[in-house]
Amino acid sequence: MEQLGSKPANSCPLTPLGFLDRAATAYANSPSVVYNDKTYTWSETYRRCLQLASSLSSVGVERGHVVSVIAPNIPAMYELHFAVPMSGAVLNTVNTRLDARTISVLLRHSESKLVFVDYQFCSLVLEALSLFPRSTETPKLVLIEEDGLSMTPTVDFIDTYEGMVGNGDPNFKWVRPKSEWDPMVLNYTSGTTSSPKGVVHCHRGLFIITVGSLIDWGIPSQPVFLWTLPMFHANGWSYSWGMAAVGGTNICLRKIHVSTIYSLIRQHGVTHICGAPAVLNMLSNSPDAKPLDKPVKILTSGAPPSPPVLLRTESLGFTVSHSYGLTEAAGFVVSCAWKPDWNSLPDTERARLKARQGVRTIALSEMDVVDPATGMSVKHDGSSTGEIVFRGGSIMLGYLKNPEATSSSIRENGWFYTGDIGVIHSDGYVELKDRSKDVIISGGENINSTEVETVLYMHPAVNEAAVVARQDKFWGETPCAFVRLKEEFCRKPTGEEMIEFCRDRLPHYMAPKTVIFRDEIPKTSTGKIQKFVLREIVNAMD
Amino acid sequence: MEQLGSKPANSCPLTPLGFLDRAATAYANSPSVVYNDKTYTWSETYRRCLQLASSLSSVGVERGHVVSVIAPNIPAMYELHFAVPMSGAVLNTVNTRLDARTISVLLRHSESKLVFVDYQFCSLVLEALSLFPRSTETPKLVLIEEDGLSMTPTVDFIDTYEGMVGNGDPNFKWVRPKSEWDPMVLNYTSGTTSSPKGVVHCHRGLFIITVGSLIDWGIPSQPVFLWTLPMFHANGWSYSWGMAAVGGTNICLRKIHVSTIYSLIRQHGVTHICGAPAVLNMLSNSPDAKPLDKPVKILTSGAPPSPPVLLRTESLGFTVSHSYGLTEAAGFVVSCAWKPDWNSLPDTERARLKARQGVRTIALSEMDVVDPATGMSVKHDGSSTGEIVFRGGSIMLGYLKNPEATSSSIRENGWFYTGDIGVIHSDGYVELKDRSKDVIISGGENINSTEVETVLYMHPAVNEAAVVARQDKFWGETPCAFVRLKEEFCRKPTGEEMIEFCRDRLPHYMAPKTVIFRDEIPKTSTGKIQKFVLREIVNAMD
Repeated sequence: MEQLGSKPANSCPLTPLGFLDRAATAYANSPSVVYNDKTYTWSETYRRCLQLASSLSSVGVERGHVVSVIAPNIPAMYELHFAVPMSGAVLNTVNTRLDARTISVLLRHSESKLVFVDYQFCSLVLEALSLFPRSTETPKLVLIEEDGLSMTPTVDFIDTYEGMVGNGDPNFKWVRPKSEWDPMVLNYTSGTTSSPKGVVHCHRGLFIITVGSLIDWGIPSQPVFLWTLPMFHANGWSYSWGMAAVGGTNICLRKIHVSTIYSLIRQHGVTHICGAPAVLNMLSNSPDAKPLDKPVKILTSGAPPSPPVLLRTESLGFTVSHSYGLTEAAGFVVSCAWKPDWNSLPDTERARLKARQGVRTIALSEMDVVDPATGMSVKHDGSSTGEIVFRGGSIMLGYLKNPEATSSSIRENGWFYTGDIGVIHSDGYVELKDRSKDVIISGGENINSTEVETVLYMHPAVNEAAVVARQDKFWGETPCAFVRLKEEFCRKPTGEEMIEFCRDRLPHYMAPKTVIFRDEIPKTSTGKIQKFVLREIVNAMD
Repeated sequence: MEQLGSKPANSCPLTPLGFLDRAATAYANSPSVVYNDKTYTWSETYRRCLQLASSLSSVGVERGHVVSVIAPNIPAMYELHFAVPMSGAVLNTVNTRLDARTISVLLRHSESKLVFVDYQFCSLVLEALSLFPRSTETPKLVLIEEDGLSMTPTVDFIDTYEGMVGNGDPNFKWVRPKSEWDPMVLNYTSGTTSSPKGVVHCHRGLFIITVGSLIDWGIPSQPVFLWTLPMFHANGWSYSWGMAAVGGTNICLRKIHVSTIYSLIRQHGVTHICGAPAVLNMLSNSPDAKPLDKPVKILTSGAPPSPPVLLRTESLGFTVSHSYGLTEAAGFVVSCAWKPDWNSLPDTERARLKARQGVRTIALSEMDVVDPATGMSVKHDGSSTGEIVFRGGSIMLGYLKNPEATSSSIRENGWFYTGDIGVIHSDGYVELKDRSKDVIISGGENINSTEVETVLYMHPAVNEAAVVARQDKFWGETPCAFVRLKEEFCRKPTGEEMIEFCRDRLPHYMAPKTVIFRDEIPKTSTGKIQKFVLREIVNAMD
């Protein structure tokens, strides 16, 4: 039996790219991508991607080159998830909310050979290129036009997107990876640290995260998927490729407006939506919110949804699932697997259970929460905290040109260290307990800022809340809350009322000592609240 | 970017075994296995498998040893799919319909160290062991008792199944594969050839087939799966492990009776069933057949369902999917992906489309139909025949101790040759056109026996039909039909009437020249009609 091993017929590289040519046959005339009045079919999408990949080869893009794209969730953005790696290149989707300086840094860091630029971001990208040092070659640019908003490309662009599609060869043989460990995508993390980290994933890892995400959410054949989650964010949690595997319809949209979302849900019979808790917040707090005709599944990740937002969203007919992941894991790899007998629990208890991150998906081989000092697993008691660690096929190859960061997160002991602090409950479910740097230590007691935030969210006037440490001569640190109130509330609560509200629901030492009301709470470009900015504001106050 | 590669944290071996410890947390108290009055939960199943794996280690079973089991679809059979490989051993599920001589041959060929024997098969297995040559060591035996039918194990058995479970250590650390290419299961094909072929699959291949089969059939979270398909048959098309990935409920049953199936469907709210076309035939032709309260999905494979059987089954409320695979591919890897616009077609047209094998699932990287002479792809015209070939992660490692058979099916050119003949239709769907040896050549024209059989099945009195070649001095060969009539028909049609019926619906040269009525048509132990036996009967006639 030892003589039997891998052979060319069974060791062909795993890759999600093969989902597309299968879709072209299995779902040939079914809608693949819908945008405004335009509908593509799966056979069209496959042909267009082949043509685009062919054109990329024609303009000199080679295996291993980086090709970047700056675009919202439009059809081109979807197609590029296949077309770029089908040319052998590595896809880098750039966060559209970054500034020119940052974009310039990461285009140089990634050594991008070519950039696809949506027409709305032309001046931003041209400014970014103007910041390149004189001696550095700038990438080629391709303009993505919008139907009816076509622009004459300037000399800066080598072609338009539709030009490249139109001139490509539909019989192009797409470039299969030589090894399943070949890089396929590069994603810069939103990171609040100074230098960007470029997360590199290989074909194998992306195959594994894609099948894992499809199975974990129980995606049926031919769902209708609304693209509220930016595709530049961990490639839309792998559902970019996943929709080809199941022949789903990708409903694209340029801008996230509540009224647009509700109208697209009705118009296209949307079945599945992904989004950060901010999307749930938006859907449930909007005046456009009204009960859905048919239930829609919504998957949230990035932070636990606050109980009131969760309950409001579910009362409208959304079925909310909660998951947890990282760009470094290629998407979500932990989810709060829901138990049928929890349905009969009271609302607040259901919300508390659903706010937990949960159990690993099948994309991960193992997950643990370990004491940073000893490396031992923490007790399954719901209170012993440790760092969440993963091992599994969807963990990144590493950070581009950053061996130090790579080896500090992917350790020799075979675990990937997430940097997130959590506990394991007695039922084995993991719950995030704040990023380690977000823990507030007051009078020697650790305060998890998310627990304070959860209570603040229970206040009917609170729209958003974030809690950080404020230096205190006596206590060391005390909790300081930033609160954005709902606009429709006529009588604004005072800071003292907010503190009193928390004291009624928390140990006194955990209640905020300071409350700061703001019209806007600073967020990273992927929508995570920037606590380091809040801390700077607080430090400047003292 | 070239410096980034696999690391221990992301290259942990793919294996479906990890689905079980995840299920023990994610679906802890949900039912895992149901049999008669007994219900296990996923946490219990995990604990029992750990204990069993621990006991296997205690009795000397080591990594790479073969452990066999002869049992129907009872809970022990399900648990052994995890417990045996969790001890590091290779699981060999023996077809329960084999005779003692064949079982003896394959227990020796596989060098089984231990055999789990269901109480109903004790005398069969003891007879098989009595056929071992004196010098050959016989495997250890473990008796699987049935609740209420407990037997005192004789000296031949080292322990009972429940004894091994009870004495095992629930804290046993299950033996993870060192490499994902390590063998995990051994399955002897039903093959109608003289020497058995032992198909070896590795952990990686079984991970890939399992996720592929879950996604292809669109399995939701926590389905209720009725085990009408023998688990010994390609491990239940990988749904043995698949049910752990999605927390399904496995409804076990010792014997396949139509009335039992219908009553279990109602009692447990069954959502999914697998089975050969014979199961569909049974379900739709039985007097117990009545319309279902809720739709049940049924997946069939092994042979295309005949149009009348398909339509009758669907009219009862079953949603029939048709797939195609081989033990060598670890399960089904091709399926007839259904297009929504086909639903409005006439019944017979829908049946014709659904009888096609279809498109590859995501478990395969590529599929083709090639001319055996040139190795080139055939035209996509629905009539040019060739051999169906596969490449993909679920293709076997090879046949145990049979390098010739291995290299003749897994070729140097990177393709696995199925031995099945098919065509590719213009829409890219593949359709099987008879095994090459089943083609009848009459007057120089090729006749596909399945096409003739399809017409015979349209006759209202026909229950089963099989067509083989009969030697003919003038034509070379002519089609000869074996027909089993339905019992409820009072007036039996004559052979001439059957021939006339076919001539009205086929080119004359394709209609049978001979019709033989039989009460039973010989089948292999996995339910495939044994055409070589029919040919022997025909040859003896001449």
